[in-house]
Amino acid sequence: MQTELIRQDGARFPALWLRDNCSCGACQIPGSGQKLFDLADLAPDIVIAQADEDADGVRVVFAPDGHRSHFTHTWLDTHRPGTAPPHDDRAEDAKALWAAADLGGVVPSGAWPSFADDPGERARCLDALLTQGFVVLHGVPVADRAVLAVARAFGYVRETNYGEMFEVRVEENPANLAFTSRQILPHTDNPYRDPVPTIQLLHCLANAAQGGDSGLVDGFHAAATLRREQPDAFDVLTHTPVTFRYADSGADLTTTAPLIGLDPLGRIRQIRFNNRSMRPIALEPDRIAGFYQAYRAFSELLYRPAARIGFRLEPGDCVMFDNTRILHARSAFTADGARHLQGCYADLDAAASELAVLRRDLDVVAELEQLFTDQGAGEYLGEPVSQAEHMLQTAAHAEAAGAPDALVAAALLHDIGHFTGRISGHQLMNGTDNRHSHTGADRLAAWFPRDVTEPVRLHVAAKRYLCAVEPGYLQRLSPASLYTLNVQGGPMSDTEADRFAALPHAEQAVALRRWDEAAKDPQATVPAFAHYRPLLTRLLRT
Amino acid sequence: MQTELIRQDGARFPALWLRDNCSCGACQIPGSGQKLFDLADLAPDIVIAQADEDADGVRVVFAPDGHRSHFTHTWLDTHRPGTAPPHDDRAEDAKALWAAADLGGVVPSGAWPSFADDPGERARCLDALLTQGFVVLHGVPVADRAVLAVARAFGYVRETNYGEMFEVRVEENPANLAFTSRQILPHTDNPYRDPVPTIQLLHCLANAAQGGDSGLVDGFHAAATLRREQPDAFDVLTHTPVTFRYADSGADLTTTAPLIGLDPLGRIRQIRFNNRSMRPIALEPDRIAGFYQAYRAFSELLYRPAARIGFRLEPGDCVMFDNTRILHARSAFTADGARHLQGCYADLDAAASELAVLRRDLDVVAELEQLFTDQGAGEYLGEPVSQAEHMLQTAAHAEAAGAPDALVAAALLHDIGHFTGRISGHQLMNGTDNRHSHTGADRLAAWFPRDVTEPVRLHVAAKRYLCAVEPGYLQRLSPASLYTLNVQGGPMSDTEADRFAALPHAEQAVALRRWDEAAKDPQATVPAFAHYRPLLTRLLRT
Repeated sequence: MQTELIRQDGARFPALWLRDNCSCGACQIPGSGQKLFDLADLAPDIVIAQADEDADGVRVVFAPDGHRSHFTHTWLDTHRPGTAPPHDDRAEDAKALWAAADLGGVVPSGAWPSFADDPGERARCLDALLTQGFVVLHGVPVADRAVLAVARAFGYVRETNYGEMFEVRVEENPANLAFTSRQILPHTDNPYRDPVPTIQLLHCLANAAQGGDSGLVDGFHAAATLRREQPDAFDVLTHTPVTFRYADSGADLTTTAPLIGLDPLGRIRQIRFNNRSMRPIALEPDRIAGFYQAYRAFSELLYRPAARIGFRLEPGDCVMFDNTRILHARSAFTADGARHLQGCYADLDAAASELAVLRRDLDVVAELEQLFTDQGAGEYLGEPVSQAEHMLQTAAHAEAAGAPDALVAAALLHDIGHFTGRISGHQLMNGTDNRHSHTGADRLAAWFPRDVTEPVRLHVAAKRYLCAVEPGYLQRLSPASLYTLNVQGGPMSDTEADRFAALPHAEQAVALRRWDEAAKDPQATVPAFAHYRPLLTRLLRT
Repeated sequence: MQTELIRQDGARFPALWLRDNCSCGACQIPGSGQKLFDLADLAPDIVIAQADEDADGVRVVFAPDGHRSHFTHTWLDTHRPGTAPPHDDRAEDAKALWAAADLGGVVPSGAWPSFADDPGERARCLDALLTQGFVVLHGVPVADRAVLAVARAFGYVRETNYGEMFEVRVEENPANLAFTSRQILPHTDNPYRDPVPTIQLLHCLANAAQGGDSGLVDGFHAAATLRREQPDAFDVLTHTPVTFRYADSGADLTTTAPLIGLDPLGRIRQIRFNNRSMRPIALEPDRIAGFYQAYRAFSELLYRPAARIGFRLEPGDCVMFDNTRILHARSAFTADGARHLQGCYADLDAAASELAVLRRDLDVVAELEQLFTDQGAGEYLGEPVSQAEHMLQTAAHAEAAGAPDALVAAALLHDIGHFTGRISGHQLMNGTDNRHSHTGADRLAAWFPRDVTEPVRLHVAAKRYLCAVEPGYLQRLSPASLYTLNVQGGPMSDTEADRFAALPHAEQAVALRRWDEAAKDPQATVPAFAHYRPLLTRLLRT
């Protein structure tokens, strides 16, 4: 009986911690990883009754509950307690802090059409948003409410009393500095809201004014500088609650929070900076001068020209930034030239989720692409094209026929079982059925829905079916295909054919099969694998 | 030159603090209170060059900027530095913490129709939500998506990857414990989200199951108990970041935060408690047992039967609770009986804003109502009804005629100038025009839009107009009204009448005037002032 597992390499894993993180089907829902038990369900004195370590991992039997778990070394290495402070996506050490010079004058940016359609490009832009704190998308349609479509491409619009969307342009009776042509110094938005909107989007519809340039400042960088250069001031600002308020006829919003918010380990995690809505400080009179000194020191760091990256939003540009970290500013402009932005709020958690899902999905797609490059380059069982060329041609036929996404993916991946089965395609040519349609479908089922996997599973049966029911089909087969037909069972009997035709995905499998036969043209020029990345990524979500 | 103002009662107000909070029109936007300057615009060495105190407040001249400000004693008393720790609406000391017994078995509740229509009832329910942390509304229509209408009655729906709305019922392949018939222990929702949804709403559409009762626990109360009884455990849970995660094919959400979140003054501010989505703790091995001991101690406090208030949601009931504080639980139920809830998320900041606006508006309405009770009870210039009766009858006529809200309000309040002008109604009867229509309209303009104030302003002119253009109208006036007609200028000339008819609100003023003449019936029974509270409150928002 041990209170902890000590692995052969000396790594220590306490018994209760291990038991609480057992990922067997009785303890966690596969996929979501949600635990099926509560702490109260575990004995407080859980120990390890037995532990067997091998090259894969460790098998553990716990007492008193007798539960058996298996932990892989990969999992144990990833989660090994105490090797690093708890990672917090939103704290300073998960970010790339910057002053303007660190960016070398380069504004992280991307193009809207790619952001919308290409998962790789969307991941790159979201990574900039989460790491640098901002990104500019060019080429967003200059259309009313287009900013909402940008927000919805990666997350959810946060509606507020300003509406789903707000207009930024000069107004006759401005209730807010934003609706004048005056300079606006760096600030965060809506500090009087809790939860504060964590992402702001501003989309430029017109900017014919002289001036009106945008500026962004990294509040985390300024706060870290303050901590280094004036630790007392940093201490004051992290420990003084400040009340922010906004009121009009329909709203009366108040939030109390420090200007620099820390996580429990003292890491910088959230900036609120907006003099306009700051209410009177409620400190003892003798501490007020100290607060204002600290507040001024922080503003001076934030207002330094060296802190700010400036750029001009042109019509179609949409800047997105982390409103818990990045301060935004605007230079004054001539009131006669039209300047019109539309803005909305969204949240970082959804953006980070989207990025994590994209990375997971891009990994799967990259793995599939690698198969095309490696094994796929080999010869295709005596056909005049490579296996990869054959599958790309099949997909091109499906796409040309207007097939739905799932069936295009099935066409693209239909022979993937040749790469993965224990019996290779060459053995098939030697007379042993490698059942590659089933092997492929099973492998794809880890990622894709049934309308991708089932046409793949049935595409060999579809050949046997077509040879049985369609006069002349058998004669159109290539010599190699004719040979494997016999290995695979030959044309179906009438009973088999009736049974096949009644299967849910038979029609799709038959369509796939026809493209399959037609996809052996050594002269054909078809799109490369990269063309299908967005389609495959979309299907991974379903 | 003084660095602070010391009032005669000894209260101290630092010079920079005062200057930063000047509310003159050059320093703040009236209404919203947004400052028009930035800290950088103020000299760091601001002092008081001159201060003159009188019974109203203090006039201050600052140096070096020479700015002049006036601070009332009321404002200075309210904001006096150092008299209390900074108030934070969301921290424990702004809440009424409870164990079940403290509630005496009474679930704070209200009725949906009143919540939707009656500002007083809505304020009472929102106060319960913010102070006790929860409230149950009865009588919500048993209709698909009705829960969204409840959320929108006081705030904004927070959309997530679960949609605008989610269904809670038994599913065949549940990805989540909520979609089974099993017991669910007290927990907060979505700890893997940051910002976490701060309000949850659950609306019952069907509950024919045996069991399936709801339970709520005050996490702040349990945390405060832990701090008192096991301070070391409290310290561990407030200082250990915990990672929560949820993943499915379309989402991968991760947040790192302590189970008990504190504000910078150490006050309990946010609970995250959900074993299901807690990922492996990243502490050094020697600190893990201590974490689990503290975690278990906290769970035991949360799971005590004495902590939990239990109730059964019946069809039409909607429970709303503060998801940063209140844990929710469900007992197991028989899977054969139908149990179906619909839920959504919303946020506390909007709920608190709505409550603040309601209170402000209810104060205005109460002030108006008080006028009806006090001065309004007096005789109405020789008419056979009191002034209050006359105005209530005028409003009843307007409402019966299907007039829009603003005109009903104008009818109700049209003679309010009699109560407030420096020259009383009795002086009017002695031959001096008190211009009560203008006095009333000007007073109402502080709160109401022009479609309320302008018909009031023109209702005397409308009498002069009608007497000029409508044969026989003059003969229908009461003796008192006929008398005042002459004091007020007599029937209009043709030129005056043409000019009047062209005014923007002339038509409404004429309609009001006709109801005015008809509202002197000593026998009439009409609704009391309370009937108009919702209508007046709605108009205050515009």
